[in-house]
Amino acid sequence: MCELLGMSANVPTDICFSFTGLMQRGGRTGPHKDGWGIVFYEGKGLRTFKDPQPSSQSRIAQLVQEYPIKSCAVVSHIRQANRGGIALENTHPFTRELWGRYWTFAHNGQLTGYKKLKTGRHKPVGDTDSELAFCWLLHELERKYPRRPGNMAAMFRHVATLCDQLRTLGVFNMLLTDGEHLMTYCTNNLHWITRRAPFGPARLIDEEVEIDFQKETTPNDIVTVIATQPLTNNEQWHKMQPGEFSLFHLGERIAGNGAA
Amino acid sequence: MCELLGMSANVPTDICFSFTGLMQRGGRTGPHKDGWGIVFYEGKGLRTFKDPQPSSQSRIAQLVQEYPIKSCAVVSHIRQANRGGIALENTHPFTRELWGRYWTFAHNGQLTGYKKLKTGRHKPVGDTDSELAFCWLLHELERKYPRRPGNMAAMFRHVATLCDQLRTLGVFNMLLTDGEHLMTYCTNNLHWITRRAPFGPARLIDEEVEIDFQKETTPNDIVTVIATQPLTNNEQWHKMQPGEFSLFHLGERIAGNGAA
Repeated sequence: MCELLGMSANVPTDICFSFTGLMQRGGRTGPHKDGWGIVFYEGKGLRTFKDPQPSSQSRIAQLVQEYPIKSCAVVSHIRQANRGGIALENTHPFTRELWGRYWTFAHNGQLTGYKKLKTGRHKPVGDTDSELAFCWLLHELERKYPRRPGNMAAMFRHVATLCDQLRTLGVFNMLLTDGEHLMTYCTNNLHWITRRAPFGPARLIDEEVEIDFQKETTPNDIVTVIATQPLTNNEQWHKMQPGEFSLFHLGERIAGNGAA
Repeated sequence: MCELLGMSANVPTDICFSFTGLMQRGGRTGPHKDGWGIVFYEGKGLRTFKDPQPSSQSRIAQLVQEYPIKSCAVVSHIRQANRGGIALENTHPFTRELWGRYWTFAHNGQLTGYKKLKTGRHKPVGDTDSELAFCWLLHELERKYPRRPGNMAAMFRHVATLCDQLRTLGVFNMLLTDGEHLMTYCTNNLHWITRRAPFGPARLIDEEVEIDFQKETTPNDIVTVIATQPLTNNEQWHKMQPGEFSLFHLGERIAGNGAA
């Protein structure tokens, strides 16, 4: 299994605090020692940092923790390999272009019988079930929507039905973003929290770090953080239900099938 | 205009020395202050570092200079914007998947009348002539080779004929790699050097740095460096000719149309 971390915000926000907690699970407080990656969107562009090394020992992870990159959409993943060897090409998140946008995907879980999924022109480069599932999603989306659909909410609802099919193959917890929308799909382990004024202090579970968001934010900021397991122990995180999907935009949950 | 840097090697080699020279041209000894990027392949996977900031002031560029990432195929670019604004999505190199491999492209020059180029399903995300030309190349390649061709040398010769067409639209100096092969195409400004035993000292033009490759290498190492302008002032660099393409593999020039 692996751990996922995502963020959606209405103003460029740095994720150093949450990332610091997650990174400890990469070989120190958690067993996820088989690589890590994080993608930050800035407009339509993105930055990716990846390492097949344990995140708790990665020099690049250290830079990401210390260097506040501000973004409205972030997807991160730390890996405990099951399908696919420990290699850079098997390190999440995966990014591909569709409809003139970069789409970024990260998966937690394990699938069986996934090799029969048809991916068309979207060929996997590595040999993980996750990347193949992502290629299949892109292939299915391109089949149904040859051009970028006007109604993105409907498109994401269709993605959720595709995720329902993947869930029949095993455990499929997912983060998917085009840099503007952030979609989550849950099989068994995914939590989220939306922070907005009045902001308070937050305390990490995995590291002796506390932050007072009051000092870091402005009253209009809205920031949602999604994680496999809650990262703080003094806030109320929502646990997502099996088969639940949520769509976040500028920090707000704007669609979904579960209880918000 | 911009500056290109590429490397092909038969053993994982760090490019810190050459990169240090190039980075100075990003706002200090050169005018290329509109962003920079570098892609390192490790097997079929890759790492990308990018910044729309001037490379001579970039914290991330500093990490790349200090942290020796060893690779057999590297493509780097520093930008002086002409077509397309200063934004992350317009920052080279550009990477896309084709035939189950990641292809990375960087361009130096400027094209006119490029908007009529058909890119099929490979949609540009940014608004540079360079990314559009890359998407056109991928589209043309996929049309001719629906599957990964067995004869890669022939495929690269075909790429060269496509580059000849792009050269009719303006200045087109290019680096293209799948992580295994590194292809260069020259319109007016591209130089290369192959270093092998017996190795000697090299002195950067742009920075007070000298290196003794004898100390850094083993006798079997073969490392080719490609750059817009020579990076050292005590070595003999080959100047590429207009319309010349070269194909490098494991540090050796294995094909091309010009004089090697």
